[in-house]
Amino acid sequence: MTAPSPEFAFIAGLRALATDPAARGLVDDCAVIEFGGETLVLTHDMMVEGVHFLPGQDPADVAWKLVATNISDLAAKGAEPVGVLLGYTLGADDARFLEGFGEALAYYRATLLGGDTVSGPPGAQTLGLTAIGRATHRPVPSRSGARPGDMLYLTGPVGAAMIGFEALRDGTAGDSLAYRRPTARLAQGLALAPHVTAMMDVSDGLLLDAMRMARASGTTFAIDSAAVPIATPEARRAEALRWGDDYQLLFTMPKAIAPPVAAHAIGKVVAASDSALLLDGTVLTDASGLGYQHTRAPVR
Amino acid sequence: MTAPSPEFAFIAGLRALATDPAARGLVDDCAVIEFGGETLVLTHDMMVEGVHFLPGQDPADVAWKLVATNISDLAAKGAEPVGVLLGYTLGADDARFLEGFGEALAYYRATLLGGDTVSGPPGAQTLGLTAIGRATHRPVPSRSGARPGDMLYLTGPVGAAMIGFEALRDGTAGDSLAYRRPTARLAQGLALAPHVTAMMDVSDGLLLDAMRMARASGTTFAIDSAAVPIATPEARRAEALRWGDDYQLLFTMPKAIAPPVAAHAIGKVVAASDSALLLDGTVLTDASGLGYQHTRAPVR
Repeated sequence: MTAPSPEFAFIAGLRALATDPAARGLVDDCAVIEFGGETLVLTHDMMVEGVHFLPGQDPADVAWKLVATNISDLAAKGAEPVGVLLGYTLGADDARFLEGFGEALAYYRATLLGGDTVSGPPGAQTLGLTAIGRATHRPVPSRSGARPGDMLYLTGPVGAAMIGFEALRDGTAGDSLAYRRPTARLAQGLALAPHVTAMMDVSDGLLLDAMRMARASGTTFAIDSAAVPIATPEARRAEALRWGDDYQLLFTMPKAIAPPVAAHAIGKVVAASDSALLLDGTVLTDASGLGYQHTRAPVR
Repeated sequence: MTAPSPEFAFIAGLRALATDPAARGLVDDCAVIEFGGETLVLTHDMMVEGVHFLPGQDPADVAWKLVATNISDLAAKGAEPVGVLLGYTLGADDARFLEGFGEALAYYRATLLGGDTVSGPPGAQTLGLTAIGRATHRPVPSRSGARPGDMLYLTGPVGAAMIGFEALRDGTAGDSLAYRRPTARLAQGLALAPHVTAMMDVSDGLLLDAMRMARASGTTFAIDSAAVPIATPEARRAEALRWGDDYQLLFTMPKAIAPPVAAHAIGKVVAASDSALLLDGTVLTDASGLGYQHTRAPVR
């Protein structure tokens, strides 16, 4: 038996502090708060140079990704962006960062509301973004509402970011756009929110995130790997199912209802069994090796 | 003529993006947004090891300060805390951080709503906190409402954090509490909000912050240095007026009204002149040397 990772222990400690129902036990993508007569949706994601982006990567792309990943969390709640707060440590090319940041805010119709800028010491650049959204449908979708009998859907292919990452890392002629400038499925999230029983964005790998949603719902997800759309050669299907950064929406709906947006049925929800995840009927009992767990451990 | 600092250029670029009135042009302590039937107050402040806290400082104190500085921004708006989102890079003693974090949240009755935890690369620890508040009085106090004829007030002494910082840095027996565990003047801010014409918290030095408020209001502040309460020996008065981190509230009110909380009259608001700041009748024409401008350049 191995000792828990520092992330694991710290996040367990945070959970003990997050007693307000709005925090959703830190197991959801966002906090959801009743405020005034409406529902506020809040998320904060960080990006660290060398962990979430490559040293030397174009700061405009880094800025885009910082915005897109946070907007993606709002998308999973069916929330429309209200604005963002930026936590910025000065880097190699702040003007380029601003360019990409402005492009992403314009694209998602989010406005910059405030934040903080600091001169960091030499070393890895650390960035944070808080996104504030307004729920368009209540109850706000969570990860915990999947029910046996529901179908499991994915809005589009996984693996494109993996291919893009490799092209960028290796300096090949391959298309790296999917890694550099991911798309938050905001329109899809807004359209889906009234219909789904559970929803999340796939940031850390399809299998890992599916297992999290199955566990949050107290069910088991049975995934048919061949039904999962991939953006990679077939030989790399297993990797595509484990790589993150594509930000597709993963959601469940009763079988009788057709999704209101284009989506691929990739499996079904069944009663909880020993494992939260079955892949082609095979039990996956351990969360390790399913995704991004060790290089990125978000509080959620 | 010197080139503008990287911070200055970056913040100017951010201002061009922050066109929503809720952002208050990034010159205020917080964003102020109408949401539902209420008013949401949002702030995000960062702390970097070696910049905002000493390497090796007790993580429990660092956590406390991270919470207190953000709650202080809410205090300046007369906003009661709703909750916080934490952006955390793992550090030397995460368990100690949690202790101080929990103590500060309990003290200010704020709840943890979410956030993100990342394993940073070796190097300086970078922390961010987003605080969400609910305005208790509308219009929400700004920095820009001071009018000629108003009196200028400060809720308590400055310089205590400077003395505390020196004690901590030098390892003397002196009391370092004011630097390690600053107090956000939340109760005072709530009581003052309905009465002030302008208000802010003094984080970067009294003179620098007073100049910012005078400029935001399009007025000049005339400060009587002898009237400023200080927590230092008299010989260090000039330094105490320039050191930050005490988080007293600085506010203006019409002369005819008595402040509803204990406060020191330290000067008055006069019609705009060449300088936004007069100290004992002497014009201060340059923002340099008035405070923390170069080591901490917040977006606000």
